[in-house]
Amino acid sequence: MLTAAENERITRVGPGTPMGNVMRRYWQPAALSHELPERDGAPIRVRLLGEDLIAFRDTEGRVGLVSAFCPHRRAPMFFGRNEECGLRCVYHGWKFDVTGACVDMPSEPPDSLFKTKVSIEAYPTWEGGGVVWAYLGPKDLQPAPPDYEWVRAPATHRFVSKTLEHANWLQALEGGLDTAHSSFLHNEKLGDKTLLRSKDGHPRIEVEKNAYGYRYASTRNLGDEGTYVRVYQYVLPSQQMRGSVTAPSGGRNKVPNFAGHLWIPIDDVTTFVYNTILSYDENAPITEEFAWEEEARFGRGKNDMLPGFKLKQNMANDYLIDRQRQKTQTFTGINGVNTQDMAVQEGMGPICDRTREHLGTSDGAVIATRQLLLEACDVVESGGMPRGVDPATYRNIRPFDCPLPPGADWHTALEPELTAKW
Amino acid sequence: MLTAAENERITRVGPGTPMGNVMRRYWQPAALSHELPERDGAPIRVRLLGEDLIAFRDTEGRVGLVSAFCPHRRAPMFFGRNEECGLRCVYHGWKFDVTGACVDMPSEPPDSLFKTKVSIEAYPTWEGGGVVWAYLGPKDLQPAPPDYEWVRAPATHRFVSKTLEHANWLQALEGGLDTAHSSFLHNEKLGDKTLLRSKDGHPRIEVEKNAYGYRYASTRNLGDEGTYVRVYQYVLPSQQMRGSVTAPSGGRNKVPNFAGHLWIPIDDVTTFVYNTILSYDENAPITEEFAWEEEARFGRGKNDMLPGFKLKQNMANDYLIDRQRQKTQTFTGINGVNTQDMAVQEGMGPICDRTREHLGTSDGAVIATRQLLLEACDVVESGGMPRGVDPATYRNIRPFDCPLPPGADWHTALEPELTAKW
Amino acid sequence: MLTAAENERITRVGPGTPMGNVMRRYWQPAALSHELPERDGAPIRVRLLGEDLIAFRDTEGRVGLVSAFCPHRRAPMFFGRNEECGLRCVYHGWKFDVTGACVDMPSEPPDSLFKTKVSIEAYPTWEGGGVVWAYLGPKDLQPAPPDYEWVRAPATHRFVSKTLEHANWLQALEGGLDTAHSSFLHNEKLGDKTLLRSKDGHPRIEVEKNAYGYRYASTRNLGDEGTYVRVYQYVLPSQQMRGSVTAPSGGRNKVPNFAGHLWIPIDDVTTFVYNTILSYDENAPITEEFAWEEEARFGRGKNDMLPGFKLKQNMANDYLIDRQRQKTQTFTGINGVNTQDMAVQEGMGPICDRTREHLGTSDGAVIATRQLLLEACDVVESGGMPRGVDPATYRNIRPFDCPLPPGADWHTALEPELTAKW
Repeated sequence: MLTAAENERITRVGPGTPMGNVMRRYWQPAALSHELPERDGAPIRVRLLGEDLIAFRDTEGRVGLVSAFCPHRRAPMFFGRNEECGLRCVYHGWKFDVTGACVDMPSEPPDSLFKTKVSIEAYPTWEGGGVVWAYLGPKDLQPAPPDYEWVRAPATHRFVSKTLEHANWLQALEGGLDTAHSSFLHNEKLGDKTLLRSKDGHPRIEVEKNAYGYRYASTRNLGDEGTYVRVYQYVLPSQQMRGSVTAPSGGRNKVPNFAGHLWIPIDDVTTFVYNTILSYDENAPITEEFAWEEEARFGRGKNDMLPGFKLKQNMANDYLIDRQRQKTQTFTGINGVNTQDMAVQEGMGPICDRTREHLGTSDGAVIATRQLLLEACDVVESGGMPRGVDPATYRNIRPFDCPLPPGADWHTALEPELTAKW
Repeated sequence: MLTAAENERITRVGPGTPMGNVMRRYWQPAALSHELPERDGAPIRVRLLGEDLIAFRDTEGRVGLVSAFCPHRRAPMFFGRNEECGLRCVYHGWKFDVTGACVDMPSEPPDSLFKTKVSIEAYPTWEGGGVVWAYLGPKDLQPAPPDYEWVRAPATHRFVSKTLEHANWLQALEGGLDTAHSSFLHNEKLGDKTLLRSKDGHPRIEVEKNAYGYRYASTRNLGDEGTYVRVYQYVLPSQQMRGSVTAPSGGRNKVPNFAGHLWIPIDDVTTFVYNTILSYDENAPITEEFAWEEEARFGRGKNDMLPGFKLKQNMANDYLIDRQRQKTQTFTGINGVNTQDMAVQEGMGPICDRTREHLGTSDGAVIATRQLLLEACDVVESGGMPRGVDPATYRNIRPFDCPLPPGADWHTALEPELTAKW
Repeated sequence: MLTAAENERITRVGPGTPMGNVMRRYWQPAALSHELPERDGAPIRVRLLGEDLIAFRDTEGRVGLVSAFCPHRRAPMFFGRNEECGLRCVYHGWKFDVTGACVDMPSEPPDSLFKTKVSIEAYPTWEGGGVVWAYLGPKDLQPAPPDYEWVRAPATHRFVSKTLEHANWLQALEGGLDTAHSSFLHNEKLGDKTLLRSKDGHPRIEVEKNAYGYRYASTRNLGDEGTYVRVYQYVLPSQQMRGSVTAPSGGRNKVPNFAGHLWIPIDDVTTFVYNTILSYDENAPITEEFAWEEEARFGRGKNDMLPGFKLKQNMANDYLIDRQRQKTQTFTGINGVNTQDMAVQEGMGPICDRTREHLGTSDGAVIATRQLLLEACDVVESGGMPRGVDPATYRNIRPFDCPLPPGADWHTALEPELTAKW
């Protein structure tokens, strides 16, 4: 439970807000690389942290990310011409390169110096992991580019997708860091007690804060068989990484060992969820077939989507809940693991009212997340660098998820598994 | 004409507003009983007086009406599982009974006492007259349940339906208490002077305030034939009852002797109209066939509706007004008696600007309504009980509508007809 | 570039705002005459300067323009009955004539004097040029009716249409007074240097303020061939007139010599664009065929429209921009000259943020427009009459557009062409 002021403080991300200032200290996903497939291709709209921007891939392959409005007369750059290393406004032909410099101003006399005095707002970008990252913060505080293991890994062993969510980013992040709900919300087989995480509905939560955020273990008691441990990583400001050992029908080789999300604020009430899969096994690349099989399981398969990264199952149709199925087969009657998440997160309203919550012992990770975000606001306000900005802090981490024999302590037992190999 | 402050005072109904406090002193229709047809069936959304709620019928047949949001982490209870005398949140499995008590909290350790400290906001409900009633006010001031004649009467002699209206409840109520407009708005046969209420366009209005609100007679002069008297009942806060003597083609036996409405605020700008029909004749039950014939006449027949109690003829399509028909056949060119009402009421805007009205002598009932509502605000603010809360005040009333011979006084002539028999 | 306060001052037009007061000193187009084709026909909705009104053509052919709400109980006059020289409210039958006087009040007793004390808000109207004009300002300051040349000219030589735009009127007006963009935005043949206005992308701008607003010449250097001069007229508050010499395939006789627009605020964020064509040649009337050919060229041909004067190519579908065509054939890849304007104007957002502009030497006309509008706000506030209210100031003007030989001065060379003949 937060005060109304605290809730405002950690949810709103527009320019000049406390959390907006925090968010602007990190590289943020602005688009999937394949949204800008070709050089000099069509520019795309990007709305990020409440700012309206346009992204374009120039003749050299670099990605420009500029204001959605021409600095001349505020014409929309979306309709701009992407040509010869610059985006040209269609209104009066002013042209800007990826740095924002005005490189042509044909509506002014040839000898005019006006061109040198005008530029378009532009943010630095960096590509990696199939993602175009942007840095929207103060120039002098720009950190080294993202170095998460999944970004570093070869493209053959990674898959990234994206989904639109109509809710504030924080309630989505909190859902992603809350392990307890998986025993309920994601119970796909009512009455089946063979699923490890269904065997104990109130896992023990250990949260260990560190330089990038925290890692936490949820331990479920399996009785004689020992425990089932899931070690999640939370990297500030809004990334979750979790292990995955569930083997699909195709067998062990197809198994990814990592799945995660980044919840990127489009604005205060809309979020892009970036979904990541990473194989830990050098000999097991992630095939297209397998990736889309997984995507379908999570509710965003090829047949599940509308244009604009929207789900066909959405708020307007109650996620196509099937009440009969809910009664007899699955806990929710809603298809798709992450669609189930979407249903509860969007259902909280645009910004969850955290003044009316009642948190229990299983909410430790959620509580820790809020503490870290409030701390980050304070740190940034007092001129410091928040956790997880420096890639050195998170470069070597990975999450893991497995059963352990009775008596084993996960810290020591899983130490090698929790270290990045890529 | 009201001041802007008065208009705010008697139109807005959210928690903590003056009229909201008045409304919360009465049992209010929350749903039709048949919206919750079966025990342990799907829960439904209820928005009432600006509050978002979920209704469910439990294993014992009782109706629960709880907050739309789980008290744990504000997940939407709409997707909840309705099982074994309780509604279980799909997020972490917390389960609440119809009283709001938390009866299971599986995400916490079995020995936790947290369950006893948390409950979901729940309102008392009561079923009668085919309606689920809810009381949203202070616990210690809860009145006896509704005892209107139509609620008490056998189901065979009653019919209740419901329609969505996009306007503040008060302008709808005022339309329902204004008899003068029926000579114009509802004139279905231009130039026909045989219709009683068309014979005199400026009826004499007598309003008699009493313990439940008022009754009022509108008297139209029929010349040598005497008068045509309609006695309406207004029961606070928003119920109208009127007599009905028009015989449909099927003959006298099919005639209901009562029709009425309750205008229930969904919020400040949206209203559910509950429509009631009651037969006064023990030997003339209301058949399904007759009920739907009447509904069609009023504009909400089986072919007139969209899901969600919406009319196909609505604001977005100008109620399918037929200008040629308006010129030659009916006063409005709009089909459906209550659709005509809807057109003028919704057309006033979300909340009618009563600062710019000019009321005449035929607006006596409207003026009296506002006086009573302003009075009710004062009474509730000073700790008193407003009119019409106590069922004893209205238990024995009914409306009536008939021609009277010259010289007859309706008070004495209609005294028996104005007394409830059921 | 304006301050935020200046931008508010000259863009907002609701009742009581500075620019709203300016706008209310002029006759404004309220509808096309053919929107009210017949006497006693269906009334139409008119929203003008943020006010909701209803227009109707009465039995005598006069156009009434009255409040959208009946003064009695605020019922919507749109559903009113247009009969025998008056519009009758369907709620209680009150009837008003085109002056706003209440001419029948059947819900009150026949001897009531109430009728003489109530009227509906009504604005004077005047028809001319195929347009219904309305005056929404102070009664005692009502100017003589519009006397633009195109209004005066015979209907055979004139064509007027109308288009809905989702943007503040001022950014649309500014687009219409900005000649520089035509070399870019409206370049329909990439690489073609034969088009006069493409030969010089940075025209010299001369703005000459006068009693109705300004006229301005943009002069493009054609080298040995001399210059290409376009003289635009700006008549306050929001009318542009420009010459046109481009001959369509059909030959010289079909050429209009005038085209213009009026940008009429529906409210602060929505605008009706009235489009005018006028033939200067007595022997060359504007045929229906030619007019619609022109309309199609501008993007509002018969196949381009949706009901309500909306374009099929609109914001919601990115004006059906064709990126391939943009790369290889036209500057924008958007069809329709004025649809291109619409794309940049609507793309600026509902009200352009002029605090973040960077104006150059080619923006002289835009700068002068703002100066005149700010001046007009001051003049009206201090009780004076703004430019262009008195028809004498603009009665004799017309725009022109043509090449001139080397050395010629447009002031003297074009003097006869810039004088109205109709």
